[in-house]
Amino acid sequence: MKTTVRELYKRMIDFDQKEVIIEGWLRNHRAQKSFGFMNINDGTFFETLQVVYEETKVNNYKALQKIGIGASVRVQGRVELTPNMKQPFEIKATAIELVGDSPEDYPLQPKRHSREFLREIAHLRPRTNLFSAVFRVRSLLNHAFHSFFQERDFVHVASPIITASDAEGAGELFKVTTLDLNDLPKTDDKTIDYKKDFFGKASYLTVSGQLQAEVFAQAFKNVYTFGPTFRAEKSNTTTHLSEFWMLEPEIAFADLEVNMDLAEAMTKYVIAYVIDRAPEEMQFFDRFVEKGLLSKLQNVVDKKFQRITHKEAITLLKEANQVFENEPKYDSDLATEHEKFLVKHFNSPVFVKDWPKHIKAFYMRLNDDQETVAAMDLLVPGAGELIGGSQREERIDLLRKRMQEMHVDEDELWWYLELRKYGSTPHSGYGIGFERMLMYLTGVENIRDVIPFPRTPKHCDF
Amino acid sequence: MKTTVRELYKRMIDFDQKEVIIEGWLRNHRAQKSFGFMNINDGTFFETLQVVYEETKVNNYKALQKIGIGASVRVQGRVELTPNMKQPFEIKATAIELVGDSPEDYPLQPKRHSREFLREIAHLRPRTNLFSAVFRVRSLLNHAFHSFFQERDFVHVASPIITASDAEGAGELFKVTTLDLNDLPKTDDKTIDYKKDFFGKASYLTVSGQLQAEVFAQAFKNVYTFGPTFRAEKSNTTTHLSEFWMLEPEIAFADLEVNMDLAEAMTKYVIAYVIDRAPEEMQFFDRFVEKGLLSKLQNVVDKKFQRITHKEAITLLKEANQVFENEPKYDSDLATEHEKFLVKHFNSPVFVKDWPKHIKAFYMRLNDDQETVAAMDLLVPGAGELIGGSQREERIDLLRKRMQEMHVDEDELWWYLELRKYGSTPHSGYGIGFERMLMYLTGVENIRDVIPFPRTPKHCDF
Repeated sequence: MKTTVRELYKRMIDFDQKEVIIEGWLRNHRAQKSFGFMNINDGTFFETLQVVYEETKVNNYKALQKIGIGASVRVQGRVELTPNMKQPFEIKATAIELVGDSPEDYPLQPKRHSREFLREIAHLRPRTNLFSAVFRVRSLLNHAFHSFFQERDFVHVASPIITASDAEGAGELFKVTTLDLNDLPKTDDKTIDYKKDFFGKASYLTVSGQLQAEVFAQAFKNVYTFGPTFRAEKSNTTTHLSEFWMLEPEIAFADLEVNMDLAEAMTKYVIAYVIDRAPEEMQFFDRFVEKGLLSKLQNVVDKKFQRITHKEAITLLKEANQVFENEPKYDSDLATEHEKFLVKHFNSPVFVKDWPKHIKAFYMRLNDDQETVAAMDLLVPGAGELIGGSQREERIDLLRKRMQEMHVDEDELWWYLELRKYGSTPHSGYGIGFERMLMYLTGVENIRDVIPFPRTPKHCDF
Repeated sequence: MKTTVRELYKRMIDFDQKEVIIEGWLRNHRAQKSFGFMNINDGTFFETLQVVYEETKVNNYKALQKIGIGASVRVQGRVELTPNMKQPFEIKATAIELVGDSPEDYPLQPKRHSREFLREIAHLRPRTNLFSAVFRVRSLLNHAFHSFFQERDFVHVASPIITASDAEGAGELFKVTTLDLNDLPKTDDKTIDYKKDFFGKASYLTVSGQLQAEVFAQAFKNVYTFGPTFRAEKSNTTTHLSEFWMLEPEIAFADLEVNMDLAEAMTKYVIAYVIDRAPEEMQFFDRFVEKGLLSKLQNVVDKKFQRITHKEAITLLKEANQVFENEPKYDSDLATEHEKFLVKHFNSPVFVKDWPKHIKAFYMRLNDDQETVAAMDLLVPGAGELIGGSQREERIDLLRKRMQEMHVDEDELWWYLELRKYGSTPHSGYGIGFERMLMYLTGVENIRDVIPFPRTPKHCDF
């Protein structure tokens, strides 16, 4: 019976003494004089399967001994529980067939490889322990987000990737064009004639689906977008990608408190979801990538998140018995050292809310004090900011005023303003960078190592 | 108690005579001399909620009468089952509060609007019956795909959106750049100096995640990608978008038959999933968009899909008692009229497999006859081709030969070739256009009406 390594591990007792067929890749191979061991990974499970083959039991022993690491094989044999050994069971092979060999220059020989080197062979790195764990957890986290929102009847919205708006001002934009760059059409005043471009105007890659999500929240009440977003910043750091995935829920008839309730419930749900479904991978991260990872995460699941205003946070920092490199100020953003202090102080995730309006985006709702906006950042122990959100300005006059102050083009966002003209509601939402959450969940320190094929300045390979 | 229209409909008996609070938008409003009716949609459910208010029971009767269609309101009142009326229950209001009014120029007054007009107000169209149904079903279909693959332990792969490869040749590409088009850097020979561009080389929007999915299938066995893809073709048809979502599973140790098994199981699963979870929306489509839709879909769920070779299909067409505009030929593609004949002939979905190699892509596996490749198209009654897939060429020499014949750049796809060098396996996969599937599922005839903000030549709005 053909089966998978996952099935064998999950129901090993059922399989004891049964004949099975397994197809997978050789992770390790030790050939002795009259018997050999193969460690097979078939991609369905983190752990490998040990296969023992003996000269007297298989008919191609000499050929089998030469099979290289990385080769694909089909193994037939009997499952035997091995309670006294390292692995809980093994397969005693009766037949092994080479499917696709792997020559000696296979780059993933069983030794330590640097992550930099592995990035250069991104087409092979999913075959290593680390990346096998990272990308399975990535897939589970992806589904955890979808499941959380679907269970609550949120409507998923495919916000557009190509946009003609550069209104959000969230950083440098990638231009999208089909114009022939060697022969650009020009207008009479010698500028590019975008009327001749594919969309009849200049177009870009999106930086956020929030504004479009707001459209749908005003029809479906509870919605979320989840897709790729882009930043053309030349940031070469361990936390920046030019292309990354972002999750953005948006909820109508909901103020900032409801927004924080949702963010807290979601964060706890997705962490618990992944720990439950990838215990082997999470233990691997805890042992080899970030010691204490699982207790860090369990703390997030268990603790009630704190909620303090930006003002309270600054007061706390000022009164702290600690010298900061950056002086905490009531009219300024928090520095990383401030965030660290706060999560340590509370020993739990902390929402910081009600931020000075001049350091926040135009669409955030003005508080009654006229000085702050109903924005929130979620700070988590060991990572700093994980989520950023706000209640949106639903009062058309105030929104218009803010847009003017911040030089946001009204004509371009006519439709966004109309959401406030027809049946406007108090509404809120937040954004979470998917890869940042994944770094937090796995302990992996470089964002390039949690996305299959990272795009960063000067890097667009595979 | 605050609740939702969905909850009321799902558990109406529990709510009978209970006091509830509902927040939503006015879809319809009839004010009489001493009482009025409001139809409220709160976005959680397809049907509206009828609210009755009486002059003697509310304290702002005059003001309430003036509330416009599209306004947002908060209603408090008692649920009363109304078994003899059109709607199964209604709310007898005790208090109604206007949240956000909607002036008389609100474009969605209760009358028929053309779909062309509604496309121009894509920020409001989700508030109509049709688009409320379309976009909820879209969200469910999205999750149906994820759930099908996650339940089977497939790993989701985020294939990159920006790519430096134009190797697949699936049509015109969008260029992605941060170069200043008004001041382009040139090399010594006067061509664009892409070394100065963001990624240090020319880059594009992806047309498919398949090749990258193959990378992951060679590590995880069973994977899928699901994300936006792009075509810069100037096709102004009802079935083409410049930006659309594509689902692409890829499975290792699997031939074309296993591939077809997967496609068949998936198609049945997602249709049943949506019918089960959106009965009101699906009945609406069946009544008002495509008569017979539900029986068309049930037929797909119930029938075993036929499997015939391209050669058999052509023979069948040649022997048919029917004159075709396009003569069926053994070395040619099927025309739409041929596809229609075949699904009608079998009265079931049909896989057509083993296609002439010269009309198919370079990566498809050459059959032993040396003339055909192990490709398959799934044809479905009422739509034609829904899925296209193939077994991939896993033999490096044959792949290289096909790439040379078809002028595919080997240097660019060095990593794709290496998948055949290190532990190559027979593997297969297919692609399904998400919006085409959604059209099939809803009966909606224009692809612009199943995506929130369509991108087509000269159209990039909102």
